[in-house]
Amino acid sequence: MFHHVKELQFNARVSKPDPKFARLLLEQFGGGNGELKAAMQYFVQAFSARQPYPKLYDMLMDIAAEEFSHLEIVGATITMLLGPINGELKQAFEDSGLKEMVTGGSASRDALVHQALNPQFFVLSGGGPTATDSNGNPWSGSFVNANGDPTVDLRSNIAAESRAKIVYEYLLQFTDDELVQESLRFLMTREISHFQMFAAHLEQIQPNFPPGILQGDARFTHTYFNMSNGASARGPWNQGQGPWAKGEWTYVEDPISAVRESNGLTNFQQTAPMSNQEMDAVGKKLGKQRYQEISKAVPKSTNQWSAYPQTSLESPRKAG
Amino acid sequence: MFHHVKELQFNARVSKPDPKFARLLLEQFGGGNGELKAAMQYFVQAFSARQPYPKLYDMLMDIAAEEFSHLEIVGATITMLLGPINGELKQAFEDSGLKEMVTGGSASRDALVHQALNPQFFVLSGGGPTATDSNGNPWSGSFVNANGDPTVDLRSNIAAESRAKIVYEYLLQFTDDELVQESLRFLMTREISHFQMFAAHLEQIQPNFPPGILQGDARFTHTYFNMSNGASARGPWNQGQGPWAKGEWTYVEDPISAVRESNGLTNFQQTAPMSNQEMDAVGKKLGKQRYQEISKAVPKSTNQWSAYPQTSLESPRKAG
Amino acid sequence: MFHHVKELQFNARVSKPDPKFARLLLEQFGGGNGELKAAMQYFVQAFSARQPYPKLYDMLMDIAAEEFSHLEIVGATITMLLGPINGELKQAFEDSGLKEMVTGGSASRDALVHQALNPQFFVLSGGGPTATDSNGNPWSGSFVNANGDPTVDLRSNIAAESRAKIVYEYLLQFTDDELVQESLRFLMTREISHFQMFAAHLEQIQPNFPPGILQGDARFTHTYFNMSNGASARGPWNQGQGPWAKGEWTYVEDPISAVRESNGLTNFQQTAPMSNQEMDAVGKKLGKQRYQEISKAVPKSTNQWSAYPQTSLESPRKAG
Amino acid sequence: MFHHVKELQFNARVSKPDPKFARLLLEQFGGGNGELKAAMQYFVQAFSARQPYPKLYDMLMDIAAEEFSHLEIVGATITMLLGPINGELKQAFEDSGLKEMVTGGSASRDALVHQALNPQFFVLSGGGPTATDSNGNPWSGSFVNANGDPTVDLRSNIAAESRAKIVYEYLLQFTDDELVQESLRFLMTREISHFQMFAAHLEQIQPNFPPGILQGDARFTHTYFNMSNGASARGPWNQGQGPWAKGEWTYVEDPISAVRESNGLTNFQQTAPMSNQEMDAVGKKLGKQRYQEISKAVPKSTNQWSAYPQTSLESPRKAG
Amino acid sequence: MFHHVKELQFNARVSKPDPKFARLLLEQFGGGNGELKAAMQYFVQAFSARQPYPKLYDMLMDIAAEEFSHLEIVGATITMLLGPINGELKQAFEDSGLKEMVTGGSASRDALVHQALNPQFFVLSGGGPTATDSNGNPWSGSFVNANGDPTVDLRSNIAAESRAKIVYEYLLQFTDDELVQESLRFLMTREISHFQMFAAHLEQIQPNFPPGILQGDARFTHTYFNMSNGASARGPWNQGQGPWAKGEWTYVEDPISAVRESNGLTNFQQTAPMSNQEMDAVGKKLGKQRYQEISKAVPKSTNQWSAYPQTSLESPRKAG
Amino acid sequence: MFHHVKELQFNARVSKPDPKFARLLLEQFGGGNGELKAAMQYFVQAFSARQPYPKLYDMLMDIAAEEFSHLEIVGATITMLLGPINGELKQAFEDSGLKEMVTGGSASRDALVHQALNPQFFVLSGGGPTATDSNGNPWSGSFVNANGDPTVDLRSNIAAESRAKIVYEYLLQFTDDELVQESLRFLMTREISHFQMFAAHLEQIQPNFPPGILQGDARFTHTYFNMSNGASARGPWNQGQGPWAKGEWTYVEDPISAVRESNGLTNFQQTAPMSNQEMDAVGKKLGKQRYQEISKAVPKSTNQWSAYPQTSLESPRKAG
Repeated sequence: MFHHVKELQFNARVSKPDPKFARLLLEQFGGGNGELKAAMQYFVQAFSARQPYPKLYDMLMDIAAEEFSHLEIVGATITMLLGPINGELKQAFEDSGLKEMVTGGSASRDALVHQALNPQFFVLSGGGPTATDSNGNPWSGSFVNANGDPTVDLRSNIAAESRAKIVYEYLLQFTDDELVQESLRFLMTREISHFQMFAAHLEQIQPNFPPGILQGDARFTHTYFNMSNGASARGPWNQGQGPWAKGEWTYVEDPISAVRESNGLTNFQQTAPMSNQEMDAVGKKLGKQRYQEISKAVPKSTNQWSAYPQTSLESPRKAG
Repeated sequence: MFHHVKELQFNARVSKPDPKFARLLLEQFGGGNGELKAAMQYFVQAFSARQPYPKLYDMLMDIAAEEFSHLEIVGATITMLLGPINGELKQAFEDSGLKEMVTGGSASRDALVHQALNPQFFVLSGGGPTATDSNGNPWSGSFVNANGDPTVDLRSNIAAESRAKIVYEYLLQFTDDELVQESLRFLMTREISHFQMFAAHLEQIQPNFPPGILQGDARFTHTYFNMSNGASARGPWNQGQGPWAKGEWTYVEDPISAVRESNGLTNFQQTAPMSNQEMDAVGKKLGKQRYQEISKAVPKSTNQWSAYPQTSLESPRKAG
Repeated sequence: MFHHVKELQFNARVSKPDPKFARLLLEQFGGGNGELKAAMQYFVQAFSARQPYPKLYDMLMDIAAEEFSHLEIVGATITMLLGPINGELKQAFEDSGLKEMVTGGSASRDALVHQALNPQFFVLSGGGPTATDSNGNPWSGSFVNANGDPTVDLRSNIAAESRAKIVYEYLLQFTDDELVQESLRFLMTREISHFQMFAAHLEQIQPNFPPGILQGDARFTHTYFNMSNGASARGPWNQGQGPWAKGEWTYVEDPISAVRESNGLTNFQQTAPMSNQEMDAVGKKLGKQRYQEISKAVPKSTNQWSAYPQTSLESPRKAG
Repeated sequence: MFHHVKELQFNARVSKPDPKFARLLLEQFGGGNGELKAAMQYFVQAFSARQPYPKLYDMLMDIAAEEFSHLEIVGATITMLLGPINGELKQAFEDSGLKEMVTGGSASRDALVHQALNPQFFVLSGGGPTATDSNGNPWSGSFVNANGDPTVDLRSNIAAESRAKIVYEYLLQFTDDELVQESLRFLMTREISHFQMFAAHLEQIQPNFPPGILQGDARFTHTYFNMSNGASARGPWNQGQGPWAKGEWTYVEDPISAVRESNGLTNFQQTAPMSNQEMDAVGKKLGKQRYQEISKAVPKSTNQWSAYPQTSLESPRKAG
Repeated sequence: MFHHVKELQFNARVSKPDPKFARLLLEQFGGGNGELKAAMQYFVQAFSARQPYPKLYDMLMDIAAEEFSHLEIVGATITMLLGPINGELKQAFEDSGLKEMVTGGSASRDALVHQALNPQFFVLSGGGPTATDSNGNPWSGSFVNANGDPTVDLRSNIAAESRAKIVYEYLLQFTDDELVQESLRFLMTREISHFQMFAAHLEQIQPNFPPGILQGDARFTHTYFNMSNGASARGPWNQGQGPWAKGEWTYVEDPISAVRESNGLTNFQQTAPMSNQEMDAVGKKLGKQRYQEISKAVPKSTNQWSAYPQTSLESPRKAG
Repeated sequence: MFHHVKELQFNARVSKPDPKFARLLLEQFGGGNGELKAAMQYFVQAFSARQPYPKLYDMLMDIAAEEFSHLEIVGATITMLLGPINGELKQAFEDSGLKEMVTGGSASRDALVHQALNPQFFVLSGGGPTATDSNGNPWSGSFVNANGDPTVDLRSNIAAESRAKIVYEYLLQFTDDELVQESLRFLMTREISHFQMFAAHLEQIQPNFPPGILQGDARFTHTYFNMSNGASARGPWNQGQGPWAKGEWTYVEDPISAVRESNGLTNFQQTAPMSNQEMDAVGKKLGKQRYQEISKAVPKSTNQWSAYPQTSLESPRKAG
């Protein structure tokens, strides 16, 4: 259940209306890397985690609730930046200045808003935020990455926080308003701290690489195919020791020949640090372990989500 | 700020997994008339209302928070209906029954899930909900109707609740699980009660018709154009007293001739209960009143959303 | 069958080109509350109504045809506002002024169009309208609300007309062109009159509340959950007599405790004006009545839509 | 203005309900190659044509009106194929058979509808069509191709008709119902005839190749780059006389070397049948001609779309 | 397999940054008629062609690879036009000029970029291209037309090339930069040459009309329905000899009467140059021929796509 | 420039057609985590990297080219799995079995394909792949994450590879065909190896945390807000040493009180390992460094992308 607290988590303020920056800020309201995306991503991920991984669930829901609270801060800031538009639109019989602002007459235009470029603030939302990005594209459920595996989902979240952070970093450069900057800096900082929470939780899950449970085909895990011509860059991503316990990168200089000669890689030979049998054994063991963790926590028959009151982390599981 | 309470608002339970019904129920999770749409619509509308109409704001946020809580109930129910899928997917080296379920072999298929039709529960979400409707279309920000005018927004909400209600009514016919039915009935009922809240609030705003402040052109408000041939239906929507204080419907039997003869309706003559001058006067007065309500509550310079603590309904407005 | 009449329903004219306003006006061409949405919504709803409710069908199709006619007026106005662009684009070897208009050179730019902000008028549509909103988002079938129940669909339509009305009200403030204003005022007025037609038709269907046929759970229909902290607004939407025949609002001051103590509301006690048994009886009776209305009009075997000529309101139903 | 005629253009009938085929047929209702796409494409194209090319306008609007009429036939057929669903949904307290149909119980399911796969017919539309394709994707304004040039638009239309034709050809193989087949065959045939109308009109515009007015760079118009390895196919598309008055294909066997040696093709040498100067002269002359055709018909100041009555093909152009 | 060659196919250069034109050029990067659409369309079509029509496959893949190469040229040009933005965004603690550019201060703004209108270049992509059109709408898979029939797909391609050509023609008018113009002219010219390749290949397939194999209903193939009132245009698209071997257009002056009198066209009588029996015979023969071509090349059991090395045009078909 | 090599990178084969699995596999063709998304993401990111970071560019383009090659493998496999559909569709006059397959007749249905659930394989694509996910949603440009900063983009890529890997892991459980499994295992393995390449490259960039250049507000970087009630999970993500050099987590047990008492966190006090001044100094230094790296490589005037031939990693930058 969600409870709404009337105080914003951070004391959002603006020094003056600025509809142009309001448009940019929409990127964090309804954009692909914005607060609604973050809130919904962690919220949707939390469902799969609720019963097998209640600690992860608790963290995901704490952060989801915070992201909804950030969405509220962003929306409040946009609304304050759009300030007088809603009221001015009621001045239908007066020369409110709004018309001049958009039609481009040079006289008497309202200096506050005359450069706002998002027409929907004027003719659709009536001066409030829209559930879109800065170009007016509606928020999409396809922004939500939730794949039912913590070693995947936590990585999706680390990346999502990285993107949200850089968008705040960029946004900070487009407003002079110190009150707005203060809110943006708070929001940006929280993306950094969430990043750290997700990273710490991922680190606790062992093994967490590769994501999921299946290991790769040993012949191809350490191979770099040089798919382009000319001068080629070499570095730790394709030569020497890779980011793993044992084994070095194999660099295939000429993939076209390699593919032709190996019957489409089916006969590709390569010394690998482990055999496919060994890798399968790792996957098999890990799959069994994860299966047990999940299946013992998720009933196959009657099921109940919450206890009343909910005094432990665990879901009751049995419908009472 | 949003606070998450671990107990679901309603005690969601399932008697057994049922992935097929889980797919149908997605319509209320990420569909155009579902809980996320409702929650986001009232939440987005609330921003414009915060300062000028704090009572409306309070109601919108109460209902938005409840809708997010319903979204959680729907997601929890879907997850329980998908029950074992997430765990079974870890059985990658065993014959888990999942494969048969989808590829259609008749032997050994898992009876629980064999008719689930949404492939993304299996190969994308790993047994959790997706932010989509029952056909897999992602939720869209374009579902949110928020136009910055309470007489419009409240009507959008009444219609939204009507649609959400009928979808629950339809859904109830596709599950036998009495525990699930109980949750759906609760959710359906709340749509009815929200409908009433919005209707009561709208009734309190006077005048609330027409939506907004501008009155129509008196020559066309009471006119019905019969845009089709043959036998025509007559009733209170096109004859006799219409749903207004004074005046009767004018029925234009042959709009093509009427349009031709009136120079594209510019010379259209009709006795109307009020003149355009009178109607303009109504709009002018109302516009002035609404402008004053809003502009006195929305500062044109520095602005602040919340007080700490927030002890009254009103926003502080002045950045402290 | 649709027949096209070359005369526009209203005599659309412009005093001069104005590509900037043309962009705003796109909101009513391909936007979520625009004419295409309205036309398609009533047209799609009409299919379910055709056989069981031919009077409703006739009204829906009259208004749908009028909305397509309004879409034509809006498109014609946009085209006239974009005036010379299409021709200028043929001046590829001359200094047509178009380039300056977009690249921002201050000399020799064409004053008519230099502030038009929609790039697709120049490089995609070649100076005609696009099937998008004012921000270039394409029209979407998800704008259409049609749920197969008149008590729902008519409310969706009342809300749709309210939104379309307010968008015209807003648009009217962004053009000085009196000829354009005249067309917009006509279009806005028709939204008001359609609102009234839908309201009158809905009023005729009794009972029309709650939408659909199922009644709610009597324990929850009159209950308001105060889902937020601090000062709370009270009014007819959560106290005293609600908008119904008998019974008062129950106000749950502290929903978290209420949920905990009632086992997730399953034991929630409340005096209700009717028992669930009485409410079910209402629903059952209404369901039977509606089932009979529909099933006697919709054949389960061979079916035919139109008679030739169609001399009555009713569909022939039997394939001849 | 559009006028609705109650008789369908073709006498659509069904022998019995078939919800499964109804789902397939949605492809022609709200799909990317369906009737709504065709209707809207020609309708949107017609705006640019109205004043400079009234004959083209007349043809586009005749065909658009016919496509809207076909959309109505498709929607009527879908509705009849979904037959009893809408009525059965009112049987909420009875064992209507609908539940079994979807939840998969083997007993007592309604044979009529038990294989319908589109959940939205049941829980969203209540047994009517949706503005989507056969997979439930909403119709999109991006399906509409309208570029303000008849030599482009008519080719877009020829291709659109080709796609619509093949989709009907495919659909015809998935129904046994001879009445439905009869309607589909009519609709498919009309796509063929519209194809011919567009082709004949395009033929009349001379020159119509290349589309638009600019001619290409003479060094590259006749050149085929062999962008792939191995055995290569040769034919009239890359050798010998191409589909033009004079000149043969140049086949670049090894584009990588050719690009390297010609400084990224900037020094590419090739004997071409015409020089760039000659080609520019063609474009210049054509641009002037088209500019004159359009600009003399499209006023740069006051403008009016229709006359009342409209007795000639031409738009009045001057606001009266 | 795709191999990347570091040299661009054409030597893309810019004289100076121009973010405003970069926005326009996005139309050809991620727009509905842009290079990604073309590349993906031919690539997706090629799959169906691979085994039955290896020559067509070779041509489609050559052109698809060229279109991907053009996409790279467009993206490189956009990046160069956005020049300094990415670097400036790192100047977070300095007064980089970017802020002024967007917030509209008139002093000290960076003249290079001050009119760039796409906010996402600044706050989302950090100065790189986005996979969107010029209005920020994301590229959509629905842009791809691939229907599994060469007589349809090649026509879709001819139309696609026509649209891409006109968009380049329009774009050329909005930049003064001769280096950019040179690249655009190359790209525009290649659309013309691809048009010719597709046309030549289509010409080789006989018969290629109507698209697909089914012939129409002889009563309706030559018929023009005059679906609008008033003055009507006549021409080769609705009178006299049509674009076929034998037969003339039938012009139905009054379709409403014709439909009523022919029982919804089921009794429509018309002299046609061929009977439906003759037309069916044509379709039957053609269907058999095409079925044989395809089915002999596409195995119904084990299948393999490539040989290693692939020395002939044909796919091996048998898994080795 | 892209060059197409007719041999697939991996020897894709199928044992028999399986249209049902073909539908699932679409998730990796046009889905949000599929091969097209990966290819386009790295390709779009590469543009910003080309001039300042040519080694990163080389790696991104090698992997992008490989992902396009994988897209081809997936498309080839889908096409082979759909095997006879395209040919059967030509049997329009025969009883091809296709009809029975979809309409559900129990007799004579084609066992190969009778459970294929994607209607668009039959009535739209004619038996080829579609640019959609497994539910028919079109691929969207919004899937592409490219933010112009390597420390962000590489993390987006690590997450993207994680998701692609788990989707292949899930898919492997839904086919018995060992030849298909072999291809899927190859593709899954390559996601693992790409993950490692991106991780190794990211590791090489120092510092790479936080993403971008701005450091957070020191008061909030180490703070965990417990946004939910009841039993709370503690772990390395909210207690003790966090994943950083120095400093411990601060756990805010009651965020509502903390927010109220700190004036919306503006007065929030917390001992942090570094002061905001120190953190700003870090950001300032890093910003200067990155600005110099980029601005010295990206010309502000004339610019050229490739040399001919391109013999070094660096772009020529000066238009020759």
